[in-house]
Amino acid sequence: MSKPKYAVIVEYIKDKIAKAEWAIGSQIPSQRELASQFQVNRSTVITALDELMADGLIEGVAGKGTIITNNTWTLMGRHAAVNWNDNVALGIHQASMNMVQEINEAESDPHFIQLSKGELSPDMFPLQTMKSIVRNVSEKLIPFGYEEPQGNRFLRESIADYLSERGVDVSPSSVLVVSGALQALHLISIGLLQQGSTVFLEKPSYVQSLSVFQSAGMTLKPIPMDAEGLRLDMTSPVKQKGKHVLYTNPTFHNPTGTLMPEQRRRELMAVCEKQQLPIIEDDVYRDLWIDAPPPPSLKSNDNYGNVLHLGSLSKTLSPGLRIGWVVGPESVISRLADLKMQSDYGSSTLSQLVAAEWLASGAYDDHLGHVRNDLTIRRRAVLEALETYLGDDAEWEIPRGGFFIWVRLNAAHHTGRLFQKAYARGIILNPGSIYAAPNGQYIRMSYANAGLEELEEGIYQLGQLMKQG
Amino acid sequence: MSKPKYAVIVEYIKDKIAKAEWAIGSQIPSQRELASQFQVNRSTVITALDELMADGLIEGVAGKGTIITNNTWTLMGRHAAVNWNDNVALGIHQASMNMVQEINEAESDPHFIQLSKGELSPDMFPLQTMKSIVRNVSEKLIPFGYEEPQGNRFLRESIADYLSERGVDVSPSSVLVVSGALQALHLISIGLLQQGSTVFLEKPSYVQSLSVFQSAGMTLKPIPMDAEGLRLDMTSPVKQKGKHVLYTNPTFHNPTGTLMPEQRRRELMAVCEKQQLPIIEDDVYRDLWIDAPPPPSLKSNDNYGNVLHLGSLSKTLSPGLRIGWVVGPESVISRLADLKMQSDYGSSTLSQLVAAEWLASGAYDDHLGHVRNDLTIRRRAVLEALETYLGDDAEWEIPRGGFFIWVRLNAAHHTGRLFQKAYARGIILNPGSIYAAPNGQYIRMSYANAGLEELEEGIYQLGQLMKQG
Repeated sequence: MSKPKYAVIVEYIKDKIAKAEWAIGSQIPSQRELASQFQVNRSTVITALDELMADGLIEGVAGKGTIITNNTWTLMGRHAAVNWNDNVALGIHQASMNMVQEINEAESDPHFIQLSKGELSPDMFPLQTMKSIVRNVSEKLIPFGYEEPQGNRFLRESIADYLSERGVDVSPSSVLVVSGALQALHLISIGLLQQGSTVFLEKPSYVQSLSVFQSAGMTLKPIPMDAEGLRLDMTSPVKQKGKHVLYTNPTFHNPTGTLMPEQRRRELMAVCEKQQLPIIEDDVYRDLWIDAPPPPSLKSNDNYGNVLHLGSLSKTLSPGLRIGWVVGPESVISRLADLKMQSDYGSSTLSQLVAAEWLASGAYDDHLGHVRNDLTIRRRAVLEALETYLGDDAEWEIPRGGFFIWVRLNAAHHTGRLFQKAYARGIILNPGSIYAAPNGQYIRMSYANAGLEELEEGIYQLGQLMKQG
Repeated sequence: MSKPKYAVIVEYIKDKIAKAEWAIGSQIPSQRELASQFQVNRSTVITALDELMADGLIEGVAGKGTIITNNTWTLMGRHAAVNWNDNVALGIHQASMNMVQEINEAESDPHFIQLSKGELSPDMFPLQTMKSIVRNVSEKLIPFGYEEPQGNRFLRESIADYLSERGVDVSPSSVLVVSGALQALHLISIGLLQQGSTVFLEKPSYVQSLSVFQSAGMTLKPIPMDAEGLRLDMTSPVKQKGKHVLYTNPTFHNPTGTLMPEQRRRELMAVCEKQQLPIIEDDVYRDLWIDAPPPPSLKSNDNYGNVLHLGSLSKTLSPGLRIGWVVGPESVISRLADLKMQSDYGSSTLSQLVAAEWLASGAYDDHLGHVRNDLTIRRRAVLEALETYLGDDAEWEIPRGGFFIWVRLNAAHHTGRLFQKAYARGIILNPGSIYAAPNGQYIRMSYANAGLEELEEGIYQLGQLMKQG
């Protein structure tokens, strides 16, 4: 059986590219020429070119015809064994992944109203203090090279003090400095978990939209939540020891905003200790409480080294510092530090020194006071706007801290459609499907990023769109 | 068939630890008590405890008896599927790995004379300029959050200018900022290469002592070198396209110091283009020339997007900045940027701004002038000392730049023995076996790190040890 004619043309052009006879940036023969060379209809040539375009090998460029855009590296890439995005796509619905890309692009487009972005507004960036802290660091600078594997000692001491004020007693040798909590999850999944192990996690969950566990060969097992967080009656007894782990975000949960009360925390710890289920506690929103400080972290009640505790300055100060931490038993931390050295030789010294100065000088606590005031105002404005414009069409709980309100649309609406309509109006929102929420009724709404007027305008527009049906 | 008695004791104690009935830090029963409980000899108990110690679960602590040092996380870790060090051990001799650990520890011990460390001496750290650049950055600071996926635009522009001065014409969109060249290798091996593919590389090679390719499932295929670098007659024709890649360090090669001349570079490019073998060019030592600027990089003659080019500020300025770059075809760079975002959300903004300021202000070029002067003096001193104290026992080539002299001991000597004796005298050196050098006759000697007097003292001591035989 001979190949279809279009495939012969595809093969021919790929070969030219692979052999570098046709260089990158050069123009390929016209459709007419190819049709004549291969004695086929022009439509067959177009089919061939479409396939090459889909492969990313050629591209139509205005005024230049069709040019070659690709090469050996990309030819190689097409076969690559590990494609993290593919792995993500296995975990959540493909359509949501396209949405995630649209959202990512829109999040860096200042023309969009950001009802989505889980990042403090630039208005809240403490510019003057940051400048003076960076200047202080410059004055105290001594020659620096590689840091210790677990991170700069002054920073680790500052983190230990910070944690001790929050009820977690650890020594600096139990702390690993990482470039943000995401890196911590990577190191844990590569260094501690085994392929085929199960990661229990809240449903919905933020990490559902990340590839970190799936790309390391883990299976996700979502556990339903109620108003107090993870439902303990839903955790099935764990059979194989050393095969499973619980990832949880009990404090101002992303995306639902849920705060797990103290009693549930105690019960959770007891269940996990009994089942020997180690816990990864993602605690990056703790400092963003609005009404009252949250109950102590799981780590603060961990007598058996069962909890790896993640914190970060990305949510509260700036993600540009790329400073977070993992706290746990020394033997585990030292293994993670080893992996961190093997992957990037440690985090930036300057960032570590600046982070340490923020924590140790007390400037961080002052800054948190301002952030809390601001978040209080923003939360109130958004709740009022929701009541006014979406009161008939949706319901929600009042979050006690963090960035997010988890809005449930009434049955008549669907977030997929709403997302597209809002997008067309220049409003970006996060549909719950990204977090594997149970149906198409949820929106994660951030009150942290857009300006107050924009927040109100965006919610007004959503209300209008929903009235249209 | 029943279990051996010692195994029953091991099982019993592991179970106590796993169930957290015996908490971490607590003392286990005495040997006498265990012997009595299990009705066995004390020697059987000792066998059991030895196994538990080897597993890292218990530890003898002076004055406290035997205590439990471990927990669920570590029990899990013992089974972990990915153990990067194990992977490394497959690649090179196990004995060298222990050496690598000894070296790593000794390198952070200021009491050792560092004939090993591939890092500029703290004497060469440009402290005053670094202080003033960090202060400048503080003054110009604006609120910062996540950077663009490929890195801060100002830094990428500065890198493009820097490369253009070195004959590589690229736009900022072909540059990816990474946290050092090692991270670049990780991203490449995860994102572009496929499991089971072959990485051709120089023998000896620095990456042989890293796990980066092996842990991603690649096979290393070493190619012998001569005085001009990679021997082209030894590269076997590559059969399967898209399966192989060449990693090379043609400029002031680590560990041999070899500089590939222009003609060999042209031939190498021609061979690789013909065989469609993409190249990873590690060019981190380029700026450290002593006698004359090196020939243009492979990348500067790359017409087909065949070369991924790695650079860094770690060798020339400070590894603590954690700033390096990869340059290549835009489609490839954008894929690597995507993976970088998925692994750590980008490099530190402060480090990127400081690096950009170094490059753009001209301070970096001034600094390189000082470094070259200093390296010239150091190289001369070390060559003189070698002539004086090792002239009868070893031979070497004069390196034209970089940090290293590749010293070949005469047949009567063996670096393994020499390493141990030198170590005992407080001198740390890098035996060639770490780099998969062909026999036990080589030492990589760094003239970059120790003080001049220490360098001479260290080489004098080596000479004495070798005279002893």
